[in-house]
Amino acid sequence: MSLTGITQIPVKTDIEETHQIISKIIHRTPVMTSQSINKILGTEIYFKCENFQKIGAFKMRGAINAALRLSPEAQKKGLATHSSGNHAQAVAYSAKYLGVPAYIVMPSNAPNIKVAATKGYGAEVIHCAPTIEARASTLEEVVAEKGATFIHPFDHYDVIAGQATAAKELIEDSPKLDVIMAPIGGGGLMSGTALSARYFSPGTLVYGAEPEIVNDAYRSFKEGHIVQNERIDTIADGLRTNLSDKTFEIIQQNLEDIITVTEEMIVKAMRLIWERMKIIIEPSCAVPLAAVMTQPAVFEGKKVGMILTGGNVDLEKLPF
Amino acid sequence: MSLTGITQIPVKTDIEETHQIISKIIHRTPVMTSQSINKILGTEIYFKCENFQKIGAFKMRGAINAALRLSPEAQKKGLATHSSGNHAQAVAYSAKYLGVPAYIVMPSNAPNIKVAATKGYGAEVIHCAPTIEARASTLEEVVAEKGATFIHPFDHYDVIAGQATAAKELIEDSPKLDVIMAPIGGGGLMSGTALSARYFSPGTLVYGAEPEIVNDAYRSFKEGHIVQNERIDTIADGLRTNLSDKTFEIIQQNLEDIITVTEEMIVKAMRLIWERMKIIIEPSCAVPLAAVMTQPAVFEGKKVGMILTGGNVDLEKLPF
Repeated sequence: MSLTGITQIPVKTDIEETHQIISKIIHRTPVMTSQSINKILGTEIYFKCENFQKIGAFKMRGAINAALRLSPEAQKKGLATHSSGNHAQAVAYSAKYLGVPAYIVMPSNAPNIKVAATKGYGAEVIHCAPTIEARASTLEEVVAEKGATFIHPFDHYDVIAGQATAAKELIEDSPKLDVIMAPIGGGGLMSGTALSARYFSPGTLVYGAEPEIVNDAYRSFKEGHIVQNERIDTIADGLRTNLSDKTFEIIQQNLEDIITVTEEMIVKAMRLIWERMKIIIEPSCAVPLAAVMTQPAVFEGKKVGMILTGGNVDLEKLPF
Repeated sequence: MSLTGITQIPVKTDIEETHQIISKIIHRTPVMTSQSINKILGTEIYFKCENFQKIGAFKMRGAINAALRLSPEAQKKGLATHSSGNHAQAVAYSAKYLGVPAYIVMPSNAPNIKVAATKGYGAEVIHCAPTIEARASTLEEVVAEKGATFIHPFDHYDVIAGQATAAKELIEDSPKLDVIMAPIGGGGLMSGTALSARYFSPGTLVYGAEPEIVNDAYRSFKEGHIVQNERIDTIADGLRTNLSDKTFEIIQQNLEDIITVTEEMIVKAMRLIWERMKIIIEPSCAVPLAAVMTQPAVFEGKKVGMILTGGNVDLEKLPF
């Protein structure tokens, strides 16, 4: 099979092909339920546990899909990205899997634990000043010098198709869902989730969930054009990013609504999952559950699928 | 099927029958593996995740088995026990399942969170002074007054047979195990685990694991008679109890060895599981993994089954 990159909004067969090619590398993570959470909230929630995914987050799906679709020549020159989060580890792991170099640009204030984890997969970490401009220019230099391919964390159809496979599996492993939800950062997971719902479970409504203080997606969705965040100080550190052109278009066309939540509700939802389900999730994961807790009437009596995005949390900086 | 209590060391058919009758109530918990933990330790570990069990711990298995085996008349008068831990919740849940009263004697210094959880299942909590004598005498009064049946947390063959079903499932859901391990507190889980290994996987060696500072089982095993703990200040709060006659006999006859571990190693093992597996376990659960980390040569290259006993941990009092 000769693979090529996906160059337009992924169609059904793109996601099916993606799922087939990445399945030998990713984990098919379990779908968990909690009788006590269902009882408390009056809903029936199916949690797709991407915290159990390789590298501890769904980001593995998109990065490996983009990497596998490069030509052998491009692969050999290596993969590059800028990220201080899970995408860095996903690209590093993908490069290691292919046996090629990875160049990860990280801000100088990135947590040591993330830098160490990324280096642990054999990646070369290039530090830059902690500004968006410095990230971009440092990455450009690396790409120019090494000939490595930049894998964008979300503004990339291969990445979106990869992230879509989480919802595809959730749909396959749950009863017919009334609603499917994901948190929104840059929108890669949300776009992929929306596409999988449209293709594999057409009657299912798609909701996004976002912290109130980084509500760029909510405002973009309501205003019909991309707007930027003014603050980034949410505890949900995976969701501080703004939408991109590719993700906004898919979100705009496929979402029922976006629900925003307070920081307090995010911590409450996170704690509920830790205490009742005995699993470790990042604050970002708790945002869709916080949305259900914020607007219970929308979800009452419904079957709700929800993607728990990752479990990489610093145990020394817990909010409780 | 007319059920009766098990009155001697459970035989193979007792455990099979027990598994059959409790299966409609308990969860069949998953067996998880971690490539990164296996790589770090040079072993192949199969974790039986009883932290995902009802009430968050394996104790559910033994309590419901004992409760189901009572006569309808005895059931009606209610269940009683003394416990400040998971057994209290297991008995309370079992009584709720049967629609009968539960009377739980708890020391006056029991954590509010445990008292609230037990009351949450509809049990009546009777407070007593925080001494072993006060527990026993208060329980006697309750039993005499209400006619309720005392379900001992471990010195009870129905309870031992119930706990044995965790290892039975682990054996069924793993490849042929070289070793199976459990932590030792009162010895109910350890005895049940040893019996299931003997009956359902005869070639598998059985190891116990215990904190150094509450090493009553280790010393009893080596000296050939029951000795008591002199201290109880281990972080592994589920393992502070001494063995009983029934559990000591089974442990004495069926264990290969008992390995003791430091408090520091318990915290290190607990953290390894939280960070790598993204699941929440109590400190007591980490003791078998701490044993592997303490004596790696014993387990190198082996397939090791390990029961993660529970996930009820106070998030405000974490050791890291």
